[in-house]
Amino acid sequence: MTAVYPGSFDPATYGHIDIIERASRLVDRLVVAVLNNTAKQPIFSVDERLEMLQETCNGIKNIEFAAFSGLLIDFARDCKANAIIRGLRAVSDFEYEFQMALTNKILDDEIETLFISTSAQYAYLSSSIVKEVATFGGCVESMVPDVIGERLLQKIKTRK
Amino acid sequence: MTAVYPGSFDPATYGHIDIIERASRLVDRLVVAVLNNTAKQPIFSVDERLEMLQETCNGIKNIEFAAFSGLLIDFARDCKANAIIRGLRAVSDFEYEFQMALTNKILDDEIETLFISTSAQYAYLSSSIVKEVATFGGCVESMVPDVIGERLLQKIKTRK
Amino acid sequence: MTAVYPGSFDPATYGHIDIIERASRLVDRLVVAVLNNTAKQPIFSVDERLEMLQETCNGIKNIEFAAFSGLLIDFARDCKANAIIRGLRAVSDFEYEFQMALTNKILDDEIETLFISTSAQYAYLSSSIVKEVATFGGCVESMVPDVIGERLLQKIKTRK
Amino acid sequence: MTAVYPGSFDPATYGHIDIIERASRLVDRLVVAVLNNTAKQPIFSVDERLEMLQETCNGIKNIEFAAFSGLLIDFARDCKANAIIRGLRAVSDFEYEFQMALTNKILDDEIETLFISTSAQYAYLSSSIVKEVATFGGCVESMVPDVIGERLLQKIKTRK
Amino acid sequence: MTAVYPGSFDPATYGHIDIIERASRLVDRLVVAVLNNTAKQPIFSVDERLEMLQETCNGIKNIEFAAFSGLLIDFARDCKANAIIRGLRAVSDFEYEFQMALTNKILDDEIETLFISTSAQYAYLSSSIVKEVATFGGCVESMVPDVIGERLLQKIKTRK
Amino acid sequence: MTAVYPGSFDPATYGHIDIIERASRLVDRLVVAVLNNTAKQPIFSVDERLEMLQETCNGIKNIEFAAFSGLLIDFARDCKANAIIRGLRAVSDFEYEFQMALTNKILDDEIETLFISTSAQYAYLSSSIVKEVATFGGCVESMVPDVIGERLLQKIKTRK
Repeated sequence: MTAVYPGSFDPATYGHIDIIERASRLVDRLVVAVLNNTAKQPIFSVDERLEMLQETCNGIKNIEFAAFSGLLIDFARDCKANAIIRGLRAVSDFEYEFQMALTNKILDDEIETLFISTSAQYAYLSSSIVKEVATFGGCVESMVPDVIGERLLQKIKTRK
Repeated sequence: MTAVYPGSFDPATYGHIDIIERASRLVDRLVVAVLNNTAKQPIFSVDERLEMLQETCNGIKNIEFAAFSGLLIDFARDCKANAIIRGLRAVSDFEYEFQMALTNKILDDEIETLFISTSAQYAYLSSSIVKEVATFGGCVESMVPDVIGERLLQKIKTRK
Repeated sequence: MTAVYPGSFDPATYGHIDIIERASRLVDRLVVAVLNNTAKQPIFSVDERLEMLQETCNGIKNIEFAAFSGLLIDFARDCKANAIIRGLRAVSDFEYEFQMALTNKILDDEIETLFISTSAQYAYLSSSIVKEVATFGGCVESMVPDVIGERLLQKIKTRK
Repeated sequence: MTAVYPGSFDPATYGHIDIIERASRLVDRLVVAVLNNTAKQPIFSVDERLEMLQETCNGIKNIEFAAFSGLLIDFARDCKANAIIRGLRAVSDFEYEFQMALTNKILDDEIETLFISTSAQYAYLSSSIVKEVATFGGCVESMVPDVIGERLLQKIKTRK
Repeated sequence: MTAVYPGSFDPATYGHIDIIERASRLVDRLVVAVLNNTAKQPIFSVDERLEMLQETCNGIKNIEFAAFSGLLIDFARDCKANAIIRGLRAVSDFEYEFQMALTNKILDDEIETLFISTSAQYAYLSSSIVKEVATFGGCVESMVPDVIGERLLQKIKTRK
Repeated sequence: MTAVYPGSFDPATYGHIDIIERASRLVDRLVVAVLNNTAKQPIFSVDERLEMLQETCNGIKNIEFAAFSGLLIDFARDCKANAIIRGLRAVSDFEYEFQMALTNKILDDEIETLFISTSAQYAYLSSSIVKEVATFGGCVESMVPDVIGERLLQKIKTRK
């Protein structure tokens, strides 16, 4: 099975990395796909996000990294993927995820969406919470790997 | 019973038309009311949205079309409506809908909100999903009638 | 429009009566239908529940009372109803209600389910809460009309 | 990947079969596992449920059938499974499913739970709804394959 | 116990005042804390919001008022608070609140988040609904105290 | 502040003990109250549950233990409590809890319900899950303290 794990990863959190590790053990090939969404005004460029993912996922087997824009389902088809992987947090926008899964099934019935639950300790975690905490000088070391935390602090300093 | 079915209809989807058909059979008079909300930056003008609704609802009995701005409850009162019709999708912002229904009941206790469930096959469907899919070149023929799909493509081409 | 408002009404609460009043103003004919469900072990017999409903809804126009067993959709068809009315509480089993609405639509596509929201002050109220409070000697006068409260106390005394 | 798809399947519905078909295309080996839960008082015996599954899934590749009792996670480990597959309906007990997934992760961190969304048209469907509809003489042909519908009617006749 | 009750209070509603009254009876010291969030573009300045709170909470014991910016958890620590108070509405963004509570627990494990339920009659109420209703000339007297309602109307007039 | 923390505690889990510890630091007096509910058929007697709670909460300040039957609000009033404490899990029956809080507010407006969130790592945990896992020979050492785990195993052996 080839699967795509899409996201903004702006930046990747321990929650994302948990999903990547778990998913990589189940599939033959996992494409971690960074969404190039200009509308969302990300903190990090696509290249920076790819770099941070590669550094922190170093050593995990069966994975590749890519950027995409446009419809996820078109990208998944280009990858010859059978499945899209989405993480589900205990505290999560389940409704939105479900709507996207049904939409993608309408667009291409051959590609399934598989939801995988993150570990309970990352239930609260999202990229936007990490950015908010870091922006106001809070400690993010339990939320993101050190290499990502350092880049985030630099980025915030530059922006001010 | 006179009922108002309000919405942005930017554009109307098969899900909206399903609700209009079902509601029109229950009431004596159904006012399909297009919200003129300048804050939301719609793709189609109010006139275009009214035109598309009229074309696709041609032949459905007991219906009228109107545009409104301001408070829905004031518009409903002006229409001498007894009820407001809202569609509920299986995957839906139920909480938001419920809050609006309670607010409208506070503002005018004589006008009820009636929720009607869409068919299961339109559970995923919303105007914003249609626009997103069309923007990236995806096929929307299972989501909107052809006349709406064509106008949507033209509109997107013009905008680029 | 003819509508059926089904329920166990074991016993009817102010929340149920609120729905009956509101729905009766919208439709031409409202059939309040007491479910004869032997599996659920009700406190009151079907006849007692019908009596209590008739006493407390005295003076409300356009309503009839009936008992039914079997599938709701068959009963609604026998009544020549166009719609089934269900109350939605702010704190509510929405998911269950939605599932039943979709099921009934599969069984008979001509009969719609309309959800109507109860007033906010009855958001917490259900027949089982009334029974639990009364069983332990709590005051139920803000939950059910006096005639129902008295019958409930008698019934509980007899049972002990 | 080897996955277990557990359930009561009392009886299997089109929703279950939809999940089995989709999952079988993703994994190398799918064990459809019938839960032998004496506490739940099923209509069909474990053997009957296995028979019905085998008849209706005839021709689907990569699948096996088994019965199990006890903890699911122990059964999955015995199967050398990497994953447990669970269907998610648009109208669904998501909270319960998520709790079980977290519990199973505590019990064995090597086995993932993967949630897969059913098609929108089966959003409403569950074994208990099929049984309720059939018990009261309703038509279940859009809910279960004919061979299962016939057995269900026979079973209900015998029980009365 | 010292507790912080944070919010935008733009403007305070009867729902907020209900929470302040209830919480003030439970704690030794309640700091009602107005968030100075420039990103959200409030209608009222922080000073105006503090003034309105002080006027309407006049006579409630054990309370203080303050403004804060940055991380809530840092402000709570500065106040030597043991707890953060959050209101929960029957119709509410529970998921978001829960995520923030878990995040705050990660940031400072010594400060608890306590959720307190508003009265059922304020279930529908939020500052943004009050502003929307007032903007379109609807009556807000059941939503906010008169002194706040008057200021809101003036503010809206000035803006137009 | 005096608060009551009610529950079945059949048996107490690490999730319950987490709430007791946190709540005990906030209040002057915490009454941990074991519900004597004959309808629910508990595994442990009320005395056994009280014993296990006392053993595992040994050393926590400001706490007392008691058993109660009947309405929680009556028991809370007898304790001269100002508040009822309820734990909220990330994966939780929030709707039910909220309904009970509103009901208790109707029965006694002077006693507040305070919800406190458990730590993320206990999000999945409930007494019934502990019992189910132990019954089928699964390991519960991450779910309950050893003294409780041992008693549970003995109880299950005796029952078989």
